[in-house]
Parts: sequence; C-alpha cells; structure tokens
Amino acid sequence: MPSAAEGARRPALIGLDGDDTLWESEVHFADVHEVYRDVFTPFVGDGTDVDARLYATERRNLELFGYGAKGFILSMIETAIELSEGAVTSAEITRILALGKGLLSHPVELIDGVADTVPTLAAAGYRLVLVTKGDLFHQEQKVAASGLADHFEQVAIVSEKDERTYRRVLDGVGVEPEDFLMVGNTVRSDVLPVLAIGGRAVQVPHHVTWSHEVVESDVEFPVLSRLADLPGWLESLG
Amino acid sequence: MPSAAEGARRPALIGLDGDDTLWESEVHFADVHEVYRDVFTPFVGDGTDVDARLYATERRNLELFGYGAKGFILSMIETAIELSEGAVTSAEITRILALGKGLLSHPVELIDGVADTVPTLAAAGYRLVLVTKGDLFHQEQKVAASGLADHFEQVAIVSEKDERTYRRVLDGVGVEPEDFLMVGNTVRSDVLPVLAIGGRAVQVPHHVTWSHEVVESDVEFPVLSRLADLPGWLESLG
Repeated sequence: MPSAAEGARRPALIGLDGDDTLWESEVHFADVHEVYRDVFTPFVGDGTDVDARLYATERRNLELFGYGAKGFILSMIETAIELSEGAVTSAEITRILALGKGLLSHPVELIDGVADTVPTLAAAGYRLVLVTKGDLFHQEQKVAASGLADHFEQVAIVSEKDERTYRRVLDGVGVEPEDFLMVGNTVRSDVLPVLAIGGRAVQVPHHVTWSHEVVESDVEFPVLSRLADLPGWLESLG
Repeated sequence: MPSAAEGARRPALIGLDGDDTLWESEVHFADVHEVYRDVFTPFVGDGTDVDARLYATERRNLELFGYGAKGFILSMIETAIELSEGAVTSAEITRILALGKGLLSHPVELIDGVADTVPTLAAAGYRLVLVTKGDLFHQEQKVAASGLADHFEQVAIVSEKDERTYRRVLDGVGVEPEDFLMVGNTVRSDVLPVLAIGGRAVQVPHHVTWSHEVVESDVEFPVLSRLADLPGWLESLG
C-alpha cells in the first residue's frame, strides 16, 4: 500500500464512484460483447474487428446518447445493420434487445469488501457522496439495490465526470476541493478532473476497464488494490 | 384567469417543468408517431392500432428503461418486430433509429412567452428550480440549449416526478413545501404529487399530452392558459 503524502490532511468529504468501484458493471458489458462478437463475426468474416466497429459507433453516438446501457443497445443495433450490410434479421435484433435488457436488469453485485468498507467510512465520520455516470434511471436502480444509499449524504448521477461536474457537486454540498477525496477505478473520470480542480483522488483499479476510459497520464496519484484498503490509508493521513 | 386563493402567500420557490412547459417536446414525439404509424400499419392491416401496441410496449418497458427518448426508440424497434411478426427489415429499423436520433437532436423551441417570463420571475425575486423528467444527457442538452439555465438556482433532472422526488428537491434547497409552487403542464407529474406533500401547483396545459400523463382527478388547482400569465397571477397573491 502506498503511504500517504506527508502532512496530507484527512478529507472532510469522500466521493465514491459507482460502476466498477462499488459494484460490478464492465464485466456485464464484456459478457455482452462476447455474445455480440459470436453472433456478428460470421456476417463479416474474420478480417473485421467487430468490437472496434461497435466502439466506433458508440463514440460517434456519444454526443447524442451520452453514456449508459440504453445508448449502448442502440449502438449495437446500428452496428449490426452496418456490419451485415442490412442482412441482419429481426431475430438477431431481438437477441440484441434481450442482451441489452439483461444489462439493465442484472442484480447488483457489490465488489469484494465494499459492503463493509462504506459503513466503516461513514462510522469513522467521513461525509460520503456517490458520484456515478450513466443512465439516470438505471443508476438510481443500482444505487437502491446496492443497499448502500443511506450512507451517502448525496447521490450525484451525472452525464459526464469532468471538472465542471465535480465543482457543481462540491458546491452543492458546500465543500472546498482541497477537503475532497475522490475514489474510483478510472483515471480519466475519477482521478484527473478532481486533481485538476485542486482536489485529491485515489484510484482503485478494476480488472476490466472500458477502452473509452483508458488514458495515458504522467500524473502521480495513490493507487489502492482494494476499496477495503481505503480506511487504513486514510488512518495513515495527517 | 382564475383568481388566487384568498390569503395565499407568494411562494419563496417556484419549480418549473421542462418538456411542454418551457419547451416543445410532445409535438416531436407526435411527429414520430405519425411516421411510425405510416410505416408499420401496412404490416398489420387496419384492424391493429399501431399506437396502442407501441404504448403497450412502452409501459411494459418503463420499469427497465424509465422515461426518455432512448427507451422510446428501443420500444419502437421492439414493437416493429412484434407487429411485423419478424418481417421488419433492417431498412425499417434504420428508419426508426433515424427518427429517434431526430428526437434527440431537434433544436430546443421555447414555448411562446417563456423566454420573457422566466427572466421576469427571476427579476421579481423568486427563487427558481427546474424539475424535469427524462434522459439525463438529453435533458441537460435541452437545458443548456434553452438559454435559461442561469435563471435557475438548481436544475433537477429526475427519473420520476413523485412525492419522494419533490421532497428530495425541496430538502436540497432548504425550502418547506408550503413555500413552494410547482408550475407545469401535466396534472400527474407537476400538480398532484406537489399538492400531496403540502405544496401548491399551477397547471399550464399543453395542447399535446402523452397519454401516460393523462389522469382523472377531482382535485382543484389553478390553471393558466400560458406561462406568461404566471407573473400576473403571482402578483394577485397575498
């Protein structure tokens, strides 16, 4: 475990990411990708990278759909039509709809240690906010199903985790960036924008990360292998 | 114009609905419905009510998709497959995707009088919140494009406009229900839940209302024909 920076104070407010920090998400998308690849590779031959084509559609649609499972389902359908040059049948479209509904309805699985760590942080007197990105309705359902909602002072479901969003969340709860620590699995969304506004961040990487969230960065920040290590790391501060 | 209840105080906080109160929304859905009906009626013969089948799918999917245009697009695709008993082609699915993207990208058209009324209310010292339902990303885009965002102390994009939601919004801004007035076009979402928690509400009906939002109610509340009548109605209070 990396040691805390010397003299760093304990944060007043801790932000926790949802997908792939508190509960599994990307593994379900990965499962869907695998089925999708199996169904549509025969349409295009081995030379075409089905995943890459799907990701290209997703990126193109991001400015209309935003993040989240519903936009992903629409992009799967659009890509299927393109890949098959229109030969896709309604049976395959129905298959995609079913895969998508599966994504929206799978039970919430908390990541190891999360169920204990969140109450531990709350009991230690930290104010907690959940900052999560994606479809509003789907995220609300996951928050409710997680059983963790009562530990959070606020649940912020946002369309993009950028500097402006974090500033808005902090303004909403009256906390200065220097008193805020964000904890999440992605460098792009959970770490860099928070550092940029003068906050602190800890990464807890997840073994599966959506390619869109992968960035190169020279910035240094603490990395913990499990969320369960966070209370001990906080103890080492100040 | 109905006169205000005798002795009613001016509200400290006014909540305004977005879709079909500040800007046009349902007319765009109605346009899509019309095209959809034209495309799919030939598949089913005149006996089948295409709109009713689509609405049945929407209702069935509401618990997975929530409100908003993306879920509506998915329901249009699902219904097309069902109505055609699988005979729908990828060209028609592509047509649906294009209709859906049109819904997500049409310019925001403020309803008559709104562009003046919102600044007038703000200038008169009323605290304003926007309480709107639907896809998070789409609603954010509409709020930004409306040019009205700066007049609102808070923009609450919510998945359901029920009593719990209004209580949460009011808690967030520290206002008691009796000091709150909600203004919107639908009785179901903008009026009844607010009255139920002890707030006040004014309906400004829109000429097109989604059937899901239509309810029977014996409750009485003020109805204004245009949002532009609101400042005068408020003047008549207290």
